[in-house]
Amino acid sequence: MVDAILRVGVLGASGYTGADIVRLALTHPNMEIAALTANTHAGKPMAAVFPHLGFSGLPDLTTVEEADWENVDVVFCGLPHGTTQEITKDVLERFPHVRFVDMSADFRLRNPETYETWYGRPHTAMDMQGEAVYGLTEHNRDAISDARLVACPGCYPTAALLALLPLAKAGLIDMADITIDAKSGVSGAGRSLKEMTLFCEAGEGMSPYGVTKHRHMPEIEQELSSASGTDTTISFTPHLVPMSRGELLTIYVRPTGGKKAGDIRAAWNDSYADEPFVHVLDKGVGPATQMVRGSNHCLLNAFDDRIPGRVIIISTLDNLVKGSAGQAIQNMNVMFGLEETTGIGHVALFP
Amino acid sequence: MVDAILRVGVLGASGYTGADIVRLALTHPNMEIAALTANTHAGKPMAAVFPHLGFSGLPDLTTVEEADWENVDVVFCGLPHGTTQEITKDVLERFPHVRFVDMSADFRLRNPETYETWYGRPHTAMDMQGEAVYGLTEHNRDAISDARLVACPGCYPTAALLALLPLAKAGLIDMADITIDAKSGVSGAGRSLKEMTLFCEAGEGMSPYGVTKHRHMPEIEQELSSASGTDTTISFTPHLVPMSRGELLTIYVRPTGGKKAGDIRAAWNDSYADEPFVHVLDKGVGPATQMVRGSNHCLLNAFDDRIPGRVIIISTLDNLVKGSAGQAIQNMNVMFGLEETTGIGHVALFP
Amino acid sequence: MVDAILRVGVLGASGYTGADIVRLALTHPNMEIAALTANTHAGKPMAAVFPHLGFSGLPDLTTVEEADWENVDVVFCGLPHGTTQEITKDVLERFPHVRFVDMSADFRLRNPETYETWYGRPHTAMDMQGEAVYGLTEHNRDAISDARLVACPGCYPTAALLALLPLAKAGLIDMADITIDAKSGVSGAGRSLKEMTLFCEAGEGMSPYGVTKHRHMPEIEQELSSASGTDTTISFTPHLVPMSRGELLTIYVRPTGGKKAGDIRAAWNDSYADEPFVHVLDKGVGPATQMVRGSNHCLLNAFDDRIPGRVIIISTLDNLVKGSAGQAIQNMNVMFGLEETTGIGHVALFP
Amino acid sequence: MVDAILRVGVLGASGYTGADIVRLALTHPNMEIAALTANTHAGKPMAAVFPHLGFSGLPDLTTVEEADWENVDVVFCGLPHGTTQEITKDVLERFPHVRFVDMSADFRLRNPETYETWYGRPHTAMDMQGEAVYGLTEHNRDAISDARLVACPGCYPTAALLALLPLAKAGLIDMADITIDAKSGVSGAGRSLKEMTLFCEAGEGMSPYGVTKHRHMPEIEQELSSASGTDTTISFTPHLVPMSRGELLTIYVRPTGGKKAGDIRAAWNDSYADEPFVHVLDKGVGPATQMVRGSNHCLLNAFDDRIPGRVIIISTLDNLVKGSAGQAIQNMNVMFGLEETTGIGHVALFP
Repeated sequence: MVDAILRVGVLGASGYTGADIVRLALTHPNMEIAALTANTHAGKPMAAVFPHLGFSGLPDLTTVEEADWENVDVVFCGLPHGTTQEITKDVLERFPHVRFVDMSADFRLRNPETYETWYGRPHTAMDMQGEAVYGLTEHNRDAISDARLVACPGCYPTAALLALLPLAKAGLIDMADITIDAKSGVSGAGRSLKEMTLFCEAGEGMSPYGVTKHRHMPEIEQELSSASGTDTTISFTPHLVPMSRGELLTIYVRPTGGKKAGDIRAAWNDSYADEPFVHVLDKGVGPATQMVRGSNHCLLNAFDDRIPGRVIIISTLDNLVKGSAGQAIQNMNVMFGLEETTGIGHVALFP
Repeated sequence: MVDAILRVGVLGASGYTGADIVRLALTHPNMEIAALTANTHAGKPMAAVFPHLGFSGLPDLTTVEEADWENVDVVFCGLPHGTTQEITKDVLERFPHVRFVDMSADFRLRNPETYETWYGRPHTAMDMQGEAVYGLTEHNRDAISDARLVACPGCYPTAALLALLPLAKAGLIDMADITIDAKSGVSGAGRSLKEMTLFCEAGEGMSPYGVTKHRHMPEIEQELSSASGTDTTISFTPHLVPMSRGELLTIYVRPTGGKKAGDIRAAWNDSYADEPFVHVLDKGVGPATQMVRGSNHCLLNAFDDRIPGRVIIISTLDNLVKGSAGQAIQNMNVMFGLEETTGIGHVALFP
Repeated sequence: MVDAILRVGVLGASGYTGADIVRLALTHPNMEIAALTANTHAGKPMAAVFPHLGFSGLPDLTTVEEADWENVDVVFCGLPHGTTQEITKDVLERFPHVRFVDMSADFRLRNPETYETWYGRPHTAMDMQGEAVYGLTEHNRDAISDARLVACPGCYPTAALLALLPLAKAGLIDMADITIDAKSGVSGAGRSLKEMTLFCEAGEGMSPYGVTKHRHMPEIEQELSSASGTDTTISFTPHLVPMSRGELLTIYVRPTGGKKAGDIRAAWNDSYADEPFVHVLDKGVGPATQMVRGSNHCLLNAFDDRIPGRVIIISTLDNLVKGSAGQAIQNMNVMFGLEETTGIGHVALFP
Repeated sequence: MVDAILRVGVLGASGYTGADIVRLALTHPNMEIAALTANTHAGKPMAAVFPHLGFSGLPDLTTVEEADWENVDVVFCGLPHGTTQEITKDVLERFPHVRFVDMSADFRLRNPETYETWYGRPHTAMDMQGEAVYGLTEHNRDAISDARLVACPGCYPTAALLALLPLAKAGLIDMADITIDAKSGVSGAGRSLKEMTLFCEAGEGMSPYGVTKHRHMPEIEQELSSASGTDTTISFTPHLVPMSRGELLTIYVRPTGGKKAGDIRAAWNDSYADEPFVHVLDKGVGPATQMVRGSNHCLLNAFDDRIPGRVIIISTLDNLVKGSAGQAIQNMNVMFGLEETTGIGHVALFP
């Protein structure tokens, strides 16, 4: 398979996650962009919506309806939730040969009631949901390799779960006392026009948002509950930080049985020793978003708090790469039997 | 006293807190800058170190030794800790009429062992420490009004204590379970040359720093212990955010006796209803550093967490103003019987 | 007049220039905000559109129609061009006692054809235009003091004309060879939602915009032509820079008669020696927007180019203050016989 | 040669250009990092100076003296000027098999007097200078392919010369009237500690620097003079912009013989039609640094000014990539017969 060329379609190519798929595809040796859709921009060249992609020989934007799915091997979906489930269902039913890597939220939650509660409307493609595989690559590689529909995790869930899943599985932390203080760059809010994401509003300042209401919470809880066997509720507070890319989670936990930061680091090392994209930093070194900007890496560390019995965990990644498009391509690599790091092995762009 | 002109000296006028004293003094009707010291820049005009202060008729910089303290009514000290205690002792012994508003860390900790533990050297002016009054204006106004030496709180302690002191005093929260996730702009690190505060290093990214080691912790604990009557240890993790000014604390607490965010808001309203600089925002509104940039205001709010029994508190202020120079002038106003808001009543510079 | 309280109305209070009028008014001893209009937000408190103005005792927003102009002494207009001329005409006709300080572009151009050419529609209130006084305070103080309608210059024209008018008047430069390379912070584009002013689009990068098409050109040319007695066309290229406030113009000129940078500096010193807000920096010192952020100051300097016969001029100001709201209040001070610096004497907020 | 592995040494690996060589080398199929020098950090792992390069299996830093040049095929030099010439001479004399790609300024100026005038000291390796080839790839490809020592252009010269050389060669513009208004991100100032590049000093503002004194001027003039056959002096004014990477030049020229922007675009298209890294944008589209951040591309466009007979040119690139490390690797590809785009074909990281 390593010499195969995969013909790739991108749904929602005028958004930031869609554009990052294209950016990465352009230097991926096995990807060829065959279709780019963006209904409100159909007919335009990609340069009209993303000038930095303008001299790369890309096809023009089309509507979803016009795209030639017959000649596409894999579709990446960067559409908003809600829209996604209908289009996914339609494409997969009409073109069963297509494999689908969804970066939206529509196929992440297995419980339809949870979906309806958090997204304010019933799910309309629960039959598809049944075959969706949760795309946290490091923890679900086997299922992903066979999947036709992969639901890539949200950016915050990726950072949270890479840190917490090994601990939840091993019973290393008290599942009733997990506090996640999350910070994200502005690209996490997408490209749609909102006053809060204007340069003058988001710049030179920071603020919490969506306090107790962020939709990534049920997704984190679903996976932690499943891993720990305990129904888990977390405290999760996101903040908007004046940078374009990157997110950093500071997670406050209580290890069980007198365990300490060293035990958490050991558990991670057990889980991730051979992982190319998850790294436990040297003792005492704080992960920074600058270390991962533009890359598919996730960096972890743990510190013993001064309060006995508590540990401070830091997890960081680029929300558009490991938190979205990069992990999506990582999953594609797994699905098609390619070397998992193919095309996404860049280190961070620093400074 | 309202028509009095106070002759003001600034120690360490080449640093950011010193410069902010000067900025505020220039439009304060009762302040006249009489002396500016910066030993390594002595002899230069202020414009040579801070061009934005260059057309304001300021005296040139001098050494500490050359400054004419005889003709100064009040001194603001923006020197580093360590240096401060010696100079303070010297000036106050030789010029007993001078009143001293210290923005350094040297007179904040009442226990000399705590000082030595956290600052790595013994305190050399503990006799002065005895008469130092902790300058958190809203909670110590009476003592400040009579003080000769006021030790202004650190920026993080100001934001933390304005939020927590009313709760600690009223027994509203479990003092054994306080987690402070703090975020600060880069000016908090001062103007000295460090690689981590270069534009290319601190920009477009964020990171934790000083995890479990930040020197503002013992100061917060001292005041919380005193207010609650309980020896208090906190969890405190600061982060560096790519903005110049502003800090925001997200504080995770457990109210006692089934209390909720509404009770915390009520306690604040009791404490701060008549305060000009501390404001409890409307229910559900998240404080943002953009709301306080350049101003002396501190904004608070509290939210019930989804985990029953937990509350999320947000506190924000400008680290150089309410967190340093603004509060220092607020204290000066109190010390000299001026209207407390004089010269520091600006709203934020937004955008 | 110095103790008078002026009752102030602000048209377009939900925009950045309107908000900066309010910010400055709140510490101006003679201004009392009586009316704030923002038709799409009528009925809301100011805090709902500008949280940083939320604890200042301001009246709620109203429609233009509902505002009580009878009890207003002076109106500041921060509405878009086009809308402004109609509302101005209506208010001034119905309430002849009101004095009007317009920050829009509608009354700056004296030639209706020029207006139509650049704004794409005929002017509908040319009768009002006749009595409008161009509000570049330093060059038009007498006319402003008696005016009922003052048309404040655009931000770029203010920076350009403060630099060039003394030279044009004195015949010091070749009017046929003026190149202005202009750089502005993002607030110059206003608060309306545009993709190009999103944080992720405008951040960490810069670009030219409106090349050969910017509407501030005819305004600069009108004033330079008038001052020099020569019909003047300029080269003007603006750029968008990733900062909220501030603009900086680099102006390339050819002095006449072998004159040099020193002669230009001398001409400025003649014009501005007693001006509180226009400053010629020391020889060799480059003006920076950081020196004026949030202040009403304009800084100038001139450098002899290596190409003989050419001079490089730098002019900088804060586009929302001296480039808009600050100069508007400066004009109000002149119109009502107040000390000209009243309420706008701040130095820059740095850092 | 396409399967060859080149063993690569980097002199000055603790600076930004050195680090960008390493970043690009890590995904370049023919490069293997064999030696990294940084005398003040010798003995440390690369992660200690650049954490983002910390999990890439790099050799530790050594001194220049300790590096094993015998086993190195190509050396990239990111040292400061002055230091470079001595080390280059030493390495090339002792290890004649090594090919040397210099990113410093030491071998760019062919005239030793010019070097001494602008760099304040005599050149000490003029014998080496004789064999140095100026590394502007698109204009010097043949000479580069055979060179042992390539002197890569400065970042500003690369952006200026890619725009102007085709015009100078074709006699399309008046060489006596070239004005370059240059804007650069802060990484152009390097990683050494300077107050002006601190986040709080360089952020949220912009300023000119080095007016009439920037050392890239003689380099641009040397190449323009050579191409045009006319001794050329330019006007060049650089500005510091609050972004990490990217530079943008706005160049004001007068075409000869009634030529217009269209003729300039045509001349570029002639020169660059087959170039992978130089692109003439569609008519009317303004190049932005956001389009090239992290990439090796240079974007050009030209606009007819409103002043007849004048044209406005915009040229943009990433100062660390096409302006330094990317072009250095492009030259290495040429020198070793690799496909020229190998390893540097990324599009921009946007947002």
